[in-house]
Amino acid sequence: MSKPVIAPGATIGIIGGGQLGRMIAVAAAQYGLKAHIYCPDPDSPAFDVAARRTIAAYDDAAALQAFADSVDVVTYEFENIPSATAEILAARRPLHPSASALATTQDRLTEKSFVAGLGIPVAPFRAVDDAAGLAQAVREIGLPAVLKTRRFGYDGKGQVMLREEEFGEAGLDPAAVMASLHDQPCILEGFVPFEAEVSVVAARNAQGRFSAYSPCANEHRHHILARTVVPAPGMAEETAAEATAIARTIADALGYVGVLAVEMFLVRGSDGRAGVVVNEIAPRVHNSGHWTIEGAQTSQFAQHVRAICGWPLGGADLTGTAVEMLNLIGDQAGDWVGILAEPGSHLHLYGKGEARPGRKMGHLTRVATGA
Amino acid sequence: MSKPVIAPGATIGIIGGGQLGRMIAVAAAQYGLKAHIYCPDPDSPAFDVAARRTIAAYDDAAALQAFADSVDVVTYEFENIPSATAEILAARRPLHPSASALATTQDRLTEKSFVAGLGIPVAPFRAVDDAAGLAQAVREIGLPAVLKTRRFGYDGKGQVMLREEEFGEAGLDPAAVMASLHDQPCILEGFVPFEAEVSVVAARNAQGRFSAYSPCANEHRHHILARTVVPAPGMAEETAAEATAIARTIADALGYVGVLAVEMFLVRGSDGRAGVVVNEIAPRVHNSGHWTIEGAQTSQFAQHVRAICGWPLGGADLTGTAVEMLNLIGDQAGDWVGILAEPGSHLHLYGKGEARPGRKMGHLTRVATGA
Repeated sequence: MSKPVIAPGATIGIIGGGQLGRMIAVAAAQYGLKAHIYCPDPDSPAFDVAARRTIAAYDDAAALQAFADSVDVVTYEFENIPSATAEILAARRPLHPSASALATTQDRLTEKSFVAGLGIPVAPFRAVDDAAGLAQAVREIGLPAVLKTRRFGYDGKGQVMLREEEFGEAGLDPAAVMASLHDQPCILEGFVPFEAEVSVVAARNAQGRFSAYSPCANEHRHHILARTVVPAPGMAEETAAEATAIARTIADALGYVGVLAVEMFLVRGSDGRAGVVVNEIAPRVHNSGHWTIEGAQTSQFAQHVRAICGWPLGGADLTGTAVEMLNLIGDQAGDWVGILAEPGSHLHLYGKGEARPGRKMGHLTRVATGA
Repeated sequence: MSKPVIAPGATIGIIGGGQLGRMIAVAAAQYGLKAHIYCPDPDSPAFDVAARRTIAAYDDAAALQAFADSVDVVTYEFENIPSATAEILAARRPLHPSASALATTQDRLTEKSFVAGLGIPVAPFRAVDDAAGLAQAVREIGLPAVLKTRRFGYDGKGQVMLREEEFGEAGLDPAAVMASLHDQPCILEGFVPFEAEVSVVAARNAQGRFSAYSPCANEHRHHILARTVVPAPGMAEETAAEATAIARTIADALGYVGVLAVEMFLVRGSDGRAGVVVNEIAPRVHNSGHWTIEGAQTSQFAQHVRAICGWPLGGADLTGTAVEMLNLIGDQAGDWVGILAEPGSHLHLYGKGEARPGRKMGHLTRVATGA
């Protein structure tokens, strides 16, 4: 390949200062790159490992411009950045993933329509703008179903499960349900009876090269990822290949550059055949890919850096035979001494202050090497 | 164990801002610790991955005091810090390794006497203070021999090889030799005919726990480490065990806390029996331990952080069957794209500016997993 434009010594601008930005910054440092973190929170964990920081609001045009001018390429650790922000950045520097990939994936309705349009299985869905629309959508899709705000949801925030039995004889009160989501534009998705939740974490670079990690099985607790296991137990090789092909189709169709995660349900048809249904796309490094730091030849963070810099992608093979990643939520990080003392356990703490309930404080990874 | 005093969220103070300080800071970040780097050079590579930086001279007492007051524990990336500096720091915060370990190891004569006093094989040596002393030492030890300044030498700087044939009939000119080393206090060491240069990188914590990596074989070019291979080829298991026991004896005798490297010569006696002769002790993380980042369960940098924080030491097993580390010196880092494209090669660049000849710009590690 010709010499990449972005070389060691360059600066990566990262929008967002949480643990994902922090781990991208550390991966960039390994390659001799500097990181400049942009985040409104002065206590951002990513600041501690970055050469530069900007503390400013995500809609501060002057700060965004100065930030863009100080870096060589811009990326982000979360997809809920305003489109105006993305446009300001993209006008000045390469932005990866692109503003259009962001626009497609930050709205659940646009995202679902896009995926369905690629011929990829998704749950039945309907746009819901008000109470009448909800009543209509429930009649068409049936219950159980999940009502989600189109934008700004994560970790179960901005969604409500609608179960038939909960509404009893009185029936569903669409107005009350919409009010519980602050009457925001929503999408109703039919509930998918799944055997497991899986994700494909993959990278695509500007040259169109694609590299996926082995699909992982994810267990959630209270809508927050609790545990990831690789390879996904009970997932046949051909289903894994199908899931990987789907991730590639999505990445190619988005013209995607960087790491993305495609969350899917592992389902079994009436014919007993296994398959996957796409749930959502995360246009960024992903919690279900944290295991790659020790468990894969190239971590998802290093892979993301390679992709956005236009560098060759690294190997995605497992370093062992199986990997387990456990999130440390809230006070689960309190036993850090016990985790440190456990042979073969890799502790990661994010340098956050208070261990509030539901807050991701760290994770631990175990790599099995036995047969 | 009881709860350690230094917990995640604490700040590690690191004296020295080169690649070793940089990699210690990154390892500290993984555990939710912050790093504060102290270095006189405003372009220090370690600044880019640290929460705080102090740019000041190593003898600036006021800056050292303020630095110590801002951190929870102090360590260093190189052993040539003035003893007055160590005393200022140690008076305020735990300093690991200790000022006395530093004093013992930063003077080659003190170090050699200390090691010999433990009954550990070293090359024959004599103190040399002037030309007359050199002539006398050469008569006693013979040639070839190596004359080294007692202090501040590294990577072959501050030493001169004395070979019999070079002096011919005119004989050795001791005054000229001493002048070439600026008439500093020196030590003359008899040359050891060795089969290989090996090192043991190991950690000891305040509780006296000890953990060593597999001894590694080191190849130097122009007195600078070029390549490290683990396990050391041709080193029998019992010789490796002997080398490890020596490192432990040294660490225990120093009351050492942190990672240290003991450089040794692999020799063969007249009876054909293999053995080791200690060359020198590096009271810090060491270039010959860089392979541990991907090649061992716990990197030497993470291990150092665990040790100086009073935490349990991590596992030191290899992650694969063999590891190779190549230093990238001067313009060798120029082919970073080729290295990135090589499957299974882990590239590390230190974020230094100019690729001057002899300057360590980065390294690469290859982990073999085959049988």
